[in-house]
Amino acid sequence: MELSNYLVERTALVEAALDRFLPREEILPARLHQAMRYSVFAGGKRIRPILMIAACEAVGGEAAQVIPAACAMEMIHTYSLIHDDLPAMDDDDYRRGRLTNHKVYGEATAILAGDALLTQAFGLLADATALEQVPAHVRLQVIGTIAVAAGSFGMVGGQVVDMESEGHDFDLPTLEYIHTHKTGALILASITTGALIGGASAEAARALERYGAAVGLAFQIADDILDIVGDQATIGKDVGSDEERGKATYPALLGLSEARGRARELRDTALSALAPLGDRGERLKQIAHFIIDRTF
Amino acid sequence: MELSNYLVERTALVEAALDRFLPREEILPARLHQAMRYSVFAGGKRIRPILMIAACEAVGGEAAQVIPAACAMEMIHTYSLIHDDLPAMDDDDYRRGRLTNHKVYGEATAILAGDALLTQAFGLLADATALEQVPAHVRLQVIGTIAVAAGSFGMVGGQVVDMESEGHDFDLPTLEYIHTHKTGALILASITTGALIGGASAEAARALERYGAAVGLAFQIADDILDIVGDQATIGKDVGSDEERGKATYPALLGLSEARGRARELRDTALSALAPLGDRGERLKQIAHFIIDRTF
Repeated sequence: MELSNYLVERTALVEAALDRFLPREEILPARLHQAMRYSVFAGGKRIRPILMIAACEAVGGEAAQVIPAACAMEMIHTYSLIHDDLPAMDDDDYRRGRLTNHKVYGEATAILAGDALLTQAFGLLADATALEQVPAHVRLQVIGTIAVAAGSFGMVGGQVVDMESEGHDFDLPTLEYIHTHKTGALILASITTGALIGGASAEAARALERYGAAVGLAFQIADDILDIVGDQATIGKDVGSDEERGKATYPALLGLSEARGRARELRDTALSALAPLGDRGERLKQIAHFIIDRTF
Repeated sequence: MELSNYLVERTALVEAALDRFLPREEILPARLHQAMRYSVFAGGKRIRPILMIAACEAVGGEAAQVIPAACAMEMIHTYSLIHDDLPAMDDDDYRRGRLTNHKVYGEATAILAGDALLTQAFGLLADATALEQVPAHVRLQVIGTIAVAAGSFGMVGGQVVDMESEGHDFDLPTLEYIHTHKTGALILASITTGALIGGASAEAARALERYGAAVGLAFQIADDILDIVGDQATIGKDVGSDEERGKATYPALLGLSEARGRARELRDTALSALAPLGDRGERLKQIAHFIIDRTF
């Protein structure tokens, strides 16, 4: 199957499952459930769920096993976007070309919609019906891995340091800390938990961990580059907004050309990490190209 | 052991464990970890952890088994207070006589500290080392129960309806919805998960569920009454603040005397629910008196 068809098919599976798992819009409190759905269905690329599914499949698992966990991951990603966009944080009015959650539902509801999505994500991961094919101890490992990746030693930690660095001088170690935590940790966890659920061997799990670390960082560098060279209609937010804010980015620190070089290097690291998987790593290779090559 | 000594001892166990589980203040990102600790150690009464421990003990379990889960519950309770106090929500400057989290650390860090506490709570519940005496399938049930109680069908849902009702007319069903969800759900879940971890029989679990539902609602009525008749120094926030805001409370709807009557009724329901536990229910009876009788 061509990558584009694969992405369309897997995305459709994830979105249908998200629609099943999220409370319906008319269920009380209706406004909260509307706000949760608004951001979950705001046109995300579903990169994390797709990486989780592809990692599971690369070690011999099936998409159906991992889809509830992939939905939980997307709920966590969505909550983080809702909170990041708040006036007290990045203060963004638009995301992916649509009004941000708090612009539609107000700040209080946006904060609570994020809280509820994060909470439901963990409920879903613990749900015996949703993840019936995954043994209990593996589900606990998945929950633990995702909690670390999303918490103060992962995504939230990265966001704090990102905010603190805004408008200040920053160095490469700080920048790598921000990127590997704020974005990289959840992408890496998508891949390692997909491998866990798929029943990866120790060797395959190690290979996917290397792949995930490289792709996670490359993804953010690619995003930073797109913020400069991208087309506003395509990326759905203001081009150049990072620079305006004095955000810590690779292009800002190293220049565009060196940032691209670093993205290429990481892509190659990711590709070679997959060697132990043989043919089964093909899909993940295509995804690495897809994520990173769009910027050069 | 007298109740006061029991409360002091169990509180000390919980606070020592919270101190172990929470990242130290100097660990990066230090400001985030400081903000998390600031609110966790801001002098809470630890009612939820104590109820969880007492429920576990009432069915023959031991405090040590349940303390990590009790800490997770307290982290979730603390995150909810941090977010409730935000300017976009209740906009409170003080809580328990101390500045609220966002007044000390700023709004962005306060939002993220809440997010990180919620995330770490679920990580802790999944942690095999912390909860090694609890079988994997029970831990998953605990996570699922707490996620429902804390999410859009529980605490967060109650908070949304509470905000929506502020300054509007409200009726008894709306008020009961707010209280049973915003406060009651987490208190009930503390008791039912304590029972689960303690290995409760089906009969004991049902008894504790009835006890928990009554105590959960009575607790909030007692809080509402204290907001009117309480001593500011004791409760640590402005007396009369609910009324000023047009908050949906029992005394506002039914008057003080009828609200007290309802609290007494619920206390009696809680006490009689414990009958199947025999002598083992004594401690929970004392706690019900302690929680509710302070208001009359």
